[in-house]
Amino acid sequence: MSKKIDFVIEDLSLVRKHSPLVHNITNYVVMNNTANALLAVGASPIMAHALEEVEDMITISGVLVINIGTLSEPWVLAMEKAMKKAEILKKPIVLDPVGAGASKFRNDSLKRLLDSASPSIIRGNASEILATLSSSGKTKGVDATDSVESAIETGNKLSELTQGTVVISGATDYILNGSTTYKVLNGHPMMTKVTGLGCTATALNGAFAAIQKDYSRAAFSAMVVMGIAGEMAQKKSAGPGSFQMHFLDALYSVNENDIKSYYKEE
Amino acid sequence: MSKKIDFVIEDLSLVRKHSPLVHNITNYVVMNNTANALLAVGASPIMAHALEEVEDMITISGVLVINIGTLSEPWVLAMEKAMKKAEILKKPIVLDPVGAGASKFRNDSLKRLLDSASPSIIRGNASEILATLSSSGKTKGVDATDSVESAIETGNKLSELTQGTVVISGATDYILNGSTTYKVLNGHPMMTKVTGLGCTATALNGAFAAIQKDYSRAAFSAMVVMGIAGEMAQKKSAGPGSFQMHFLDALYSVNENDIKSYYKEE
Amino acid sequence: MSKKIDFVIEDLSLVRKHSPLVHNITNYVVMNNTANALLAVGASPIMAHALEEVEDMITISGVLVINIGTLSEPWVLAMEKAMKKAEILKKPIVLDPVGAGASKFRNDSLKRLLDSASPSIIRGNASEILATLSSSGKTKGVDATDSVESAIETGNKLSELTQGTVVISGATDYILNGSTTYKVLNGHPMMTKVTGLGCTATALNGAFAAIQKDYSRAAFSAMVVMGIAGEMAQKKSAGPGSFQMHFLDALYSVNENDIKSYYKEE
Repeated sequence: MSKKIDFVIEDLSLVRKHSPLVHNITNYVVMNNTANALLAVGASPIMAHALEEVEDMITISGVLVINIGTLSEPWVLAMEKAMKKAEILKKPIVLDPVGAGASKFRNDSLKRLLDSASPSIIRGNASEILATLSSSGKTKGVDATDSVESAIETGNKLSELTQGTVVISGATDYILNGSTTYKVLNGHPMMTKVTGLGCTATALNGAFAAIQKDYSRAAFSAMVVMGIAGEMAQKKSAGPGSFQMHFLDALYSVNENDIKSYYKEE
Repeated sequence: MSKKIDFVIEDLSLVRKHSPLVHNITNYVVMNNTANALLAVGASPIMAHALEEVEDMITISGVLVINIGTLSEPWVLAMEKAMKKAEILKKPIVLDPVGAGASKFRNDSLKRLLDSASPSIIRGNASEILATLSSSGKTKGVDATDSVESAIETGNKLSELTQGTVVISGATDYILNGSTTYKVLNGHPMMTKVTGLGCTATALNGAFAAIQKDYSRAAFSAMVVMGIAGEMAQKKSAGPGSFQMHFLDALYSVNENDIKSYYKEE
Repeated sequence: MSKKIDFVIEDLSLVRKHSPLVHNITNYVVMNNTANALLAVGASPIMAHALEEVEDMITISGVLVINIGTLSEPWVLAMEKAMKKAEILKKPIVLDPVGAGASKFRNDSLKRLLDSASPSIIRGNASEILATLSSSGKTKGVDATDSVESAIETGNKLSELTQGTVVISGATDYILNGSTTYKVLNGHPMMTKVTGLGCTATALNGAFAAIQKDYSRAAFSAMVVMGIAGEMAQKKSAGPGSFQMHFLDALYSVNENDIKSYYKEE
């Protein structure tokens, strides 16, 4: 068994031991799921978006999670303020560029966020990562082919730009930081049939980054736990409704034995 | 077996084949359910409400779904803008006048929305449909009795006004457009014990209108699928909690055989 | 069997008989859960927060429930307006000071709300109740120890200030009004692993206050029903996902026999 599986086991037990406060400024669609997933895995969620209180909230939290799913101007302002404060406080920042590329407003907002502070981790699917890199305004000639190689190249460019970790979600997840590349093979296609599981993955990245300063390792552990919980849930599910329920149960109950029996590596 | 059941089977398979993008500007309470129901039935939800991006979002989507459940002024402005753009782009617009009649603000907002563009489909319960017609400011002497006949008359008047389809939900659903009337007998009273299932019905109307240009037929197919999924769910449920879960599973799994075995007609 | 259990049985049957309209101005995270819990127990939820319509909504409702979980300035303004109107209309007001003490903005907002009208019931955990008392600006030397005695003293001070009922949630719930003290021993620790169950408790307090003018008794009945539903759910659950589902089913199905068999008293 590889050493990497020990990272997952150790990091999960740290989340449960320290129950880190995770400050989320996220979208309306997934707030409830995200909070429940964080509770289930052992962390403590805070949802707060008012300009007047985001600085107080990140101050008492271990990590800031920013998700642009249902953006509007007041929320962008709060995100900028919270990211600047998190950077000053040296707290990790995790960014989910939901729907990047789908509108000019979303791309412009992403640029503003990237100009506010450098995310420790950015997690998205391949097209969101590509659009985030383009939105940064600091790159030219982004290659838009659909190949895995192209996605990895894009992710590494974004990682170079932010000096942080980039997670590209998909059938296989890639965790990139310019030097190390982690692959995560766990997961199940049913996870794409439930809204907001990408957002949940991002929030879990936050919980793990709060207790593990090697952020690429934190992202790796989070994505493995996520994928294994998905596989455990799928075994008991008759569709996306029951999947959601079993997924939360699995995040809550997943233990060392489960990780050892489900973990996949090439 | 009537021809109408074939509409349902064909339209459901078209939703699953084309997986239409459904742009929702909807209420906070139901965003998560709505997105999950759309995913479960085979469509692709977009939730976006910022004035700055609604035009971009409807441009890439197949249909616009407007729901006034938790209205405030910035959202009304975004709804007006999105509806105008959808009309220019000749995309269908589906409107859910949640709580019409409950406040002056809601009625005034409905008038503004109806003045922005004509919905292809309006779906509500009988009192919401009545209040929508009154709110339009283009009718007098609306009859407020509780009879089915009165509800149908109101629905047909609203249909005449919008030149679109009107769906009146209830124990029996009526789909009206001035000429054809469809009745839907499927469904279960437990559906009124789960928040937002009316909103889910509206969103499904949107998914079906994106793939079926005969909007009354699209509404009919959507309401039958909704009702059958409700009956399938109820069989396995011990209350509204488990009903919700089984309902999503049923939307995901409902197939031609289920439709044939559950479909009811007078 | 004590008389108090009869309060619970009678009040629950009144909620189901009258299905009171409960006007909630609450947070984004829990809106869906709260609405579903109110429907499951037999009440009728309204979620509406626009400044333009909160007065209309409380006018048609039996009770106002205010929850500060995801506060921002426009929502505080609407809460103030709704509370003033509720006081004029002599409708009960139930306040949930979620996260009180976590930010200056939250504390300042609480002071504004307490200055707008006196809540009939305030429900929070011990630290929220303490922070609410401090925020009122009308107390000095609040004792911040963690003892139960200290929490009760704080609750009674807050009750004296508002001339209302104060519910302190915890392993044991305390319902205080300066003279009577009710204790609720029902409940299960799994309830802390699901987001928003405190908010659900507050909303149930609202439903019961709408049909029971003795607000301390109403709070007691609501908290017992809540706790018993939690215990019933836990018996069938494998984690927080399935717990949520069974909890809604239990709120829907809990009956006199369940209450008699689960109710605990010292």
